Amino acid sequence: MDCEHQQVWGRPMGAPLEHNVAGCAKVAPILQRIGDKWSILIVAMLSGGPRRFNELKRAIGGISQRMLTLSLRGLERDGLVTRTVTPTIPPRVDYALTPLGQSLEGPVSAISNWASAHHGAIEEARRRFDAARDDA
Amino acid sequence: MDCEHQQVWGRPMGAPLEHNVAGCAKVAPILQRIGDKWSILIVAMLSGGPRRFNELKRAIGGISQRMLTLSLRGLERDGLVTRTVTPTIPPRVDYALTPLGQSLEGPVSAISNWASAHHGAIEEARRRFDAARDDA
Repeated sequence: MDCEHQQVWGRPMGAPLEHNVAGCAKVAPILQRIGDKWSILIVAMLSGGPRRFNELKRAIGGISQRMLTLSLRGLERDGLVTRTVTPTIPPRVDYALTPLGQSLEGPVSAISNWASAHHGAIEEARRRFDAARDDA
Repeated sequence: MDCEHQQVWGRPMGAPLEHNVAGCAKVAPILQRIGDKWSILIVAMLSGGPRRFNELKRAIGGISQRMLTLSLRGLERDGLVTRTVTPTIPPRVDYALTPLGQSLEGPVSAISNWASAHHGAIEEARRRFDAARDDA
């Protein structure tokens, strides 16, 4: 059993999902990496095939050079993305999903489809919440 | 069509997933909320039914009082979680998923199952990456 805190946390009070996530201390830092919005967008972009740095930067609007560099390095460190330098002049750098990164495409697709389907409802909820606070 | 930047960003160069995510500027801030590791853990915990603040705090180890308060308020603002105060002495506060929050259970489950299945591979990749940097 990899989840060493399971015994401490895993009160048998809920659904399997609850058990699985909240029972596993090691999962939280991984969720932090892959749950990060830029990582999700990068994995989604690379699901179409290898991309160069500037292609990613253009496609993912609003990301800074520094944040894209940091996010790609994090994904490389996690074994989800490869960085390949071709020694042309100037050097060419391509990023691609590893097999492990490819296995994340399904979950990333589920989250992003959900966000895409429900962002209207969420924005409406935010407006109501903020209006209620202004009245208080 | 809700995604107003689709025309600008949506170069026809990849998979539907790539299109869907990177093509939609409005999705990124929503991913930022729901992708946050604490939000994923809270949604997972509440999938077992309503919980009180201190139940959540105990079950989700490592979260501070302040961060749990902020995360719950964000989820409430997004329309994913309700906060119900029962005027007992002391007052009792319960948190529960809304129907919109319940619709997030599937994607959250996909992400957390992936993280649970692959955290060993990711930790191994991190060790290799860090060792290669130390050698450089």
